[in-house]
Amino acid sequence: MSLPPNRGFEEAEFRARLARAQSMMADAGLAALLLSTEPEVRYFTGYLTRFWESPARPWFVVVPATGDPIAVIPSIGAALMSRGWITDIRTWRSPDLEDDGVSLLRDALFEVAGAEGVIGVPSGLETHLRMPLDSWNALQGGLRFSDDAGIIVRLRQIKSPAEIAKITHACSIATRAFERVNSIASAGVPLEKVFRRFQMLLLQEGADWVPYLAGAAGRDGYHDVISPATEQPLMGGDVLMLDTGAVWDGYFCDFDRNFMVGSASKIVRSSHDKLIDAIEAGMSVAKPGAMMCDLFAGMAKIVAADGDAVADAGRLGHGLGMQLTEWPSIIQADRTVLKPGMVLTLEPSVETKDGRIMVHEENIVITPEGAEFLNKPASRVVQEI
Amino acid sequence: MSLPPNRGFEEAEFRARLARAQSMMADAGLAALLLSTEPEVRYFTGYLTRFWESPARPWFVVVPATGDPIAVIPSIGAALMSRGWITDIRTWRSPDLEDDGVSLLRDALFEVAGAEGVIGVPSGLETHLRMPLDSWNALQGGLRFSDDAGIIVRLRQIKSPAEIAKITHACSIATRAFERVNSIASAGVPLEKVFRRFQMLLLQEGADWVPYLAGAAGRDGYHDVISPATEQPLMGGDVLMLDTGAVWDGYFCDFDRNFMVGSASKIVRSSHDKLIDAIEAGMSVAKPGAMMCDLFAGMAKIVAADGDAVADAGRLGHGLGMQLTEWPSIIQADRTVLKPGMVLTLEPSVETKDGRIMVHEENIVITPEGAEFLNKPASRVVQEI
Repeated sequence: MSLPPNRGFEEAEFRARLARAQSMMADAGLAALLLSTEPEVRYFTGYLTRFWESPARPWFVVVPATGDPIAVIPSIGAALMSRGWITDIRTWRSPDLEDDGVSLLRDALFEVAGAEGVIGVPSGLETHLRMPLDSWNALQGGLRFSDDAGIIVRLRQIKSPAEIAKITHACSIATRAFERVNSIASAGVPLEKVFRRFQMLLLQEGADWVPYLAGAAGRDGYHDVISPATEQPLMGGDVLMLDTGAVWDGYFCDFDRNFMVGSASKIVRSSHDKLIDAIEAGMSVAKPGAMMCDLFAGMAKIVAADGDAVADAGRLGHGLGMQLTEWPSIIQADRTVLKPGMVLTLEPSVETKDGRIMVHEENIVITPEGAEFLNKPASRVVQEI
Repeated sequence: MSLPPNRGFEEAEFRARLARAQSMMADAGLAALLLSTEPEVRYFTGYLTRFWESPARPWFVVVPATGDPIAVIPSIGAALMSRGWITDIRTWRSPDLEDDGVSLLRDALFEVAGAEGVIGVPSGLETHLRMPLDSWNALQGGLRFSDDAGIIVRLRQIKSPAEIAKITHACSIATRAFERVNSIASAGVPLEKVFRRFQMLLLQEGADWVPYLAGAAGRDGYHDVISPATEQPLMGGDVLMLDTGAVWDGYFCDFDRNFMVGSASKIVRSSHDKLIDAIEAGMSVAKPGAMMCDLFAGMAKIVAADGDAVADAGRLGHGLGMQLTEWPSIIQADRTVLKPGMVLTLEPSVETKDGRIMVHEENIVITPEGAEFLNKPASRVVQEI
């Protein structure tokens, strides 16, 4: 059992992120970035709390073209924010039915960008603006907004060594928990009990929390991979799939394992073979300079049925880090070029029969030479429980 | 240990929600509602999945002025959505870099509202639009949008008996877990270990998952209530506070308990007394016809120091249900009238000394006669561990 890395980050890590951001902002002609979601705020401030579970209060970070970020946040967060590296922390007592931070935010934006400077707001796929639409509308007039020129995506897609260490640690926790599934799941145990027990295994193994657990069970495959667990007991002949996003110090793993209740049928064995083959094909393509569409093509030629590799899932993997899923996507249309420091999931799925599927997922990092697994990859033989 | 209620809802529950919504939409002159967040989508469809943890894909529900809701969702969700009562399910393969559901959504909205009908979008406090800003901008032109006239707030503020049963069950799970804290926490145990073990207790007692856990420990109080746990071991003389939002079948509890490592100092005892007094004061005010500001005044006069009752927290409680925190807020400015079926937290805090605080929280439901606790209320004496 490896020692966990240090919690948090050195100030130098945040300064490096800021410098990269400001260099991109200069290229894009942006006077400021306005950020409002949990990972965006955390990326620049280190502000880590589960309090985002409450939708009540908006939180903002303003990144100026020069100088340090400004946190514009509810006063309930001031104590925690002030423990980090940010010194310009402006607070209001939220919730305020009349003005829930809007004036304070507008003043900060105007101070930084003036009436003429362009303020970049993340606007593309996999982003949203975490503030009430009324507040957003109230901010218009006197300020110039545009998209963020993809800066947040470009920044967050490349993980630092310290970030990779955290993801790796989350992966090691889940690897150990998966190795113990035979102690919590067997014929007769309802799937919802398996879900509870697996979350407990992840916590025992050191997860801070378990934001995501999905799974399914069925003979020769399952119908989808996002449904909640039912009270249906596992039965001999079922394939059980568990897929977890466990978190350590704010960073996710995201991978799954398939298990056989009893012994695997021929179709399960051949399907799992194909999934492992697809992972191997992905690994052989995954190196700096290749594009996501190349990764897609490499995996798709293994798992494609009737020329259709992604079916309902829509993709064969994705980025991973501060969120369970991040850009880019392993799809035919994504021409993002792989670079060292990108952390990805490879997530092929195959139809077994009658609309049933099996899914398999591993977590990798792009290195200067190619790619490495961040978790212990699954063996070709489906583990029996 | 009470038997859990049934999972899910009868179709009649969704039909009743829809009928209430459509009646309010008629009053407000709305041709449709456009909904995009997890609780909004789930409220009308029953669509329950932890897959929302992934920010990759947008999800939409269109509620027409007459007729049934339309789900406009990524194909990965079609299997699960089709198990519910919604029959008009329109899907696209997401993520799509060119058009991630925007055209499909626009067509559905146009079909329902035409060019003239007004489409209501939740826009007020504690809401946001969960779609990329680019997609929102692309929807403009040819459609008329406005706020939702507060319809979603008014609907969700009043819980049905089936919803209250789920919240009550979540509360009973946390009540039992809190009663076992002395088995997992004592002097010398690091707070982060207490956090892990408490999450395991909640799962053992039947929680589906534990989206929220906060807490703190310190001599004679703590500094804030939203920080993550540190490796600092509990010490004799510490007050330990644990605050959990555990979920059962998609519904939250949200309450906390204070514990003493060793015996309580005079200031801890008197502070806890004051917190319990504030809860009792709140319960005596909490009845149909009273307003949130009355509830605030009743509690504030017990916990106010220098006329300031809410300090950094900003409020003395809030609504509770499908989310950890919901409208309304127990603040001076909130004139929402209490009605039977409202589920609230009462959450007073007091400063103990030197900027340290203690916080206490209980969950209640407004009944025709007054209010009832949904959890087992804390005793006046702080439990020693």
